[in-house]
Amino acid sequence: MVHSDAPAQEKHDLDDATLRDRAVAAALGHAPFDILLTGGRVVDVATCTVRAADVGLVGPLIASVHPPGTRSDAQTTSALRGALVAPGLIDTHLHVESSMVTPRGYAEVVVPQGTTTICWDPHEVGNVAGLAGVRWALEASRALPLRILVLGPSSVPSAPGLERAGAAFLEDEMRAMLSWPEVAGVAEVMDMRGVLGRSRRMRGILDAGLASGKLVCGHARGLEGAELVAFAAAGIQSDHEITSGEDLLAKLQAGYTVELRGSHDDVLPGAVAALNRLPVIPQTLTLCTDDILPDDLVEKGGMVDLLRRLVRYGLDPVQALRAATLNAAMRLGRRDLGLVAPGRRADLVVLSDLEAMRVDQVIASGRLVAAAGRLTEALRPDTATAPTGTMRMSSLSAGDFCIRAPAASGRAWLRVVDQPRFTRWAEREAAVADGVVVLPDDLTLMAVSHRHGRAAATPVLGVLGNWGHWTGALATTISHDSHNLTVFGRDANDMALAANVLIACGGGMAVAAGGRLLAVVELEVCGLLSEAPAEQVAAAFACVRESAMQIADWGPPPLVFRACTGASLACNPGPHVTDLGITDGSTGAVYPGSIIRFETSR
Amino acid sequence: MVHSDAPAQEKHDLDDATLRDRAVAAALGHAPFDILLTGGRVVDVATCTVRAADVGLVGPLIASVHPPGTRSDAQTTSALRGALVAPGLIDTHLHVESSMVTPRGYAEVVVPQGTTTICWDPHEVGNVAGLAGVRWALEASRALPLRILVLGPSSVPSAPGLERAGAAFLEDEMRAMLSWPEVAGVAEVMDMRGVLGRSRRMRGILDAGLASGKLVCGHARGLEGAELVAFAAAGIQSDHEITSGEDLLAKLQAGYTVELRGSHDDVLPGAVAALNRLPVIPQTLTLCTDDILPDDLVEKGGMVDLLRRLVRYGLDPVQALRAATLNAAMRLGRRDLGLVAPGRRADLVVLSDLEAMRVDQVIASGRLVAAAGRLTEALRPDTATAPTGTMRMSSLSAGDFCIRAPAASGRAWLRVVDQPRFTRWAEREAAVADGVVVLPDDLTLMAVSHRHGRAAATPVLGVLGNWGHWTGALATTISHDSHNLTVFGRDANDMALAANVLIACGGGMAVAAGGRLLAVVELEVCGLLSEAPAEQVAAAFACVRESAMQIADWGPPPLVFRACTGASLACNPGPHVTDLGITDGSTGAVYPGSIIRFETSR
Repeated sequence: MVHSDAPAQEKHDLDDATLRDRAVAAALGHAPFDILLTGGRVVDVATCTVRAADVGLVGPLIASVHPPGTRSDAQTTSALRGALVAPGLIDTHLHVESSMVTPRGYAEVVVPQGTTTICWDPHEVGNVAGLAGVRWALEASRALPLRILVLGPSSVPSAPGLERAGAAFLEDEMRAMLSWPEVAGVAEVMDMRGVLGRSRRMRGILDAGLASGKLVCGHARGLEGAELVAFAAAGIQSDHEITSGEDLLAKLQAGYTVELRGSHDDVLPGAVAALNRLPVIPQTLTLCTDDILPDDLVEKGGMVDLLRRLVRYGLDPVQALRAATLNAAMRLGRRDLGLVAPGRRADLVVLSDLEAMRVDQVIASGRLVAAAGRLTEALRPDTATAPTGTMRMSSLSAGDFCIRAPAASGRAWLRVVDQPRFTRWAEREAAVADGVVVLPDDLTLMAVSHRHGRAAATPVLGVLGNWGHWTGALATTISHDSHNLTVFGRDANDMALAANVLIACGGGMAVAAGGRLLAVVELEVCGLLSEAPAEQVAAAFACVRESAMQIADWGPPPLVFRACTGASLACNPGPHVTDLGITDGSTGAVYPGSIIRFETSR
Repeated sequence: MVHSDAPAQEKHDLDDATLRDRAVAAALGHAPFDILLTGGRVVDVATCTVRAADVGLVGPLIASVHPPGTRSDAQTTSALRGALVAPGLIDTHLHVESSMVTPRGYAEVVVPQGTTTICWDPHEVGNVAGLAGVRWALEASRALPLRILVLGPSSVPSAPGLERAGAAFLEDEMRAMLSWPEVAGVAEVMDMRGVLGRSRRMRGILDAGLASGKLVCGHARGLEGAELVAFAAAGIQSDHEITSGEDLLAKLQAGYTVELRGSHDDVLPGAVAALNRLPVIPQTLTLCTDDILPDDLVEKGGMVDLLRRLVRYGLDPVQALRAATLNAAMRLGRRDLGLVAPGRRADLVVLSDLEAMRVDQVIASGRLVAAAGRLTEALRPDTATAPTGTMRMSSLSAGDFCIRAPAASGRAWLRVVDQPRFTRWAEREAAVADGVVVLPDDLTLMAVSHRHGRAAATPVLGVLGNWGHWTGALATTISHDSHNLTVFGRDANDMALAANVLIACGGGMAVAAGGRLLAVVELEVCGLLSEAPAEQVAAAFACVRESAMQIADWGPPPLVFRACTGASLACNPGPHVTDLGITDGSTGAVYPGSIIRFETSR
């Protein structure tokens, strides 16, 4: 929807009688093609066959797919020498924010990988910058060789009452977004309890979504049986939270369009095995990347990497491509996409190898936009004014990272958020000296400061157990889903240093140890994204990741970040630290601080 | 789109938060279902599997599909005893007119057969009654248990310049129809030459269709190679004019959604064989009936008969059902249809046998509407005022059916339309007596009178060769596509009698012989349809068909009618008789009469 200068423009660029005149004339052989691809093999995802055919383009259209060598009249001819021509890849669910770049930076990376259309849920931007953020997402998605279908975030914040984001979207905000023609629907509905309990907010948001006739996308994490069924009965049409082959099958059987995602690789072999047991790979299967860190996006790739892995795990490559193209186009209601066929939009990927998904060229709306892994021309500069300056707080001091006790000395009993990811409550005893809790060696501090200017920024200090031994501090403004400033560590000076670096630069991630800043990735847009090129962001992020390895001894590197950036995700069951306190996602309780009780020393 | 009292109503009946409250509560087991179907097996056309499951309905929604026996709380429970539950059948292309009944009469027959949604091209009504006719089609389609998606006819008339219909639809008329929310798109574009030659009319109609974002349906009869490709490049998305397995494959490969039709049975075995050679039955395959005569509709059935035949010819029944349900729903952009799954519309068919497609019950929008082959309740009377009184002409006399010569006696050389269906030119010599051509014994007269009041009604008299020996007259106001009054025979008195019966009753078909009327089916709506019940129309029509057998000696009965009602189809190549003269579809020539030259006797 957003490829030409104005979204409305692309929407109608194929509805131009003069263009159709030219396409018909070229198809009939009365006029030359603009571009002719010869000697290739078309991957026909309608009949699921591959056949030798030449492809003639006129403007943004595929004008002809015809027997090899029967035409040679074209402005430009490209000899494919047996390469495959497939439809451009469509990613049905992702957060650009996870890759820490703007839509422009994202396009720069994924278009050469063959992705020509994505469905973006600007959930993180919405949580920080509200409707203005979503507006920016729409504007920043224009005039790119990547078609970006923007959805309206449904979970801003994801846990009302347990955290404070930069905005709150209720029914009215959702209706406003859906009234914008470029917004393609309601983005993943995450508040599953709210949906099943018919909370006023989720009921209103779903009602707005259904009334709009646009997409209503879901997030059915862990739902099964009656709850999975009820979630669909509420009007939710899709899910990408697949945890196993059985879960995939249950969701397909419940009528969901599954957006099988690449971000959880361990699930994919079982998913492929389950699919291969069916008589037909369902047309309700699409593919998505969901969340990819910037270095992974640059080095391994997005959709193309997912396709490669699916094929490696045993999915027929044509079926994988069908899921990533025609199935997605039909899910999105885009009759112009998803097939290498006359009359469709010329979004094409030329592959030199089907199993390895080696991308040679990418054509978007009839223009060669990438070859040999690079864009053929530089993208226009980002013109939309991005929401920067979202660190609405003053700098912090070391004292802000000390848990103060009611008296100078004594013993405190602490509530502890135990173990990363699937958190649970624990309790620990600690000494108090000089009025401050002396944290036992094996515990870690997690400090969350409200940064959106809607409340004081004084950090809430939580205590983490079984999060390894820390010798430095990690600060991040990527902290799902409210993205308040979150700092992990044990040393108050290092924590203040890392925090203040981010407060000064507008947000990002920073690592400090021994009074020195080790690494920082500056994410000045919403404290989530950078306007720098993806390679640069990836390098800075890789450096942060590497430094984080040096200051924490636990788990493989992705887990450090995944767990840290998710440690504030109060919508999940169990304890989490947020800007409001230490919360319990299961009971809805909020405890303002970590000290349960205190005894003065005699 | 048009099932409840107002089409707009049905469009939004599922977007009701209170309904969703009820559905979610029922799915979770907090409230009973309205209807519970127990002990059945669900035909899941997403995963292409059949599994034992119970189905709970709430209002027009499927609220739950769950393991057998796990729920028993419902207002009404229906024990299915192993029967199959499939989605309601969707017919993607047909002309209600071919069955000679109103939408109400049509629904009465096909709903008990399991059809719950049809796409109607009111092409014939449009040709007779213009935009008012299409308006009537929309109104008459409301408040039925059959969802009727009405398309805007694109070929009114089908051969401009060669015939005069009751109306002419150009771009403006198409834009007007597409602006009506109930109109689902552009109906089959038949003027293939106009499309490929970019005639002003077809260019404008296609431009209007593409700009509307609605369906643009096609009729790609006999197109192949570059022409087939160019037709798609023009923006046409579908075709039902399949002539062989190879033709089917070529059209699927060219990216068309194929509406495989039941009206040409001889094509189906080859089509099934071609489909079975593909790795996957394409999701771009849908099914349609196109044209069914009333007695066939009543006795053999519509979609259900097509499904039975496809299965008999070797198509897997689940795949046949998938084409008739989910594939169709996706083609039509209807996310509420096509699956037995929670959150979808409760349009269901209960089948006691999958291979035989034996329909036990039909549920439409959550209401049991048919059981054991009958509707469960009588339909409301037709409320829309149908376009009757469309015989805008006075009665004719025997003299109108005589070819007058320039002198009382001599010899005339006649241009002859030779052989039915694939007509060709011939020439014959004939005597003239009393100023009238004495038709040689083996020739037949075809008289076409303009009946729409836009010109004089004096018949054009054409001469047919190799149309068998006629001993009576057949008059019909079903005469594609302008539906002028068309009379076949040799006896001027019988011809006038049959014609005048139709002029008096408002149109239909009549057979006369020996000065007596043998049979008549009165079709007072546009001269095409009857408001009588389908069984009654079928019986009257069967009587006409039988009588026609007695007055003509050629071919099997369907051929008589097919050839006669199509003998005026001037858009086809070769000679045809129309209200304008004897036309040549290949050259565009129009000859006012049948006499090529005349020699006076000496």
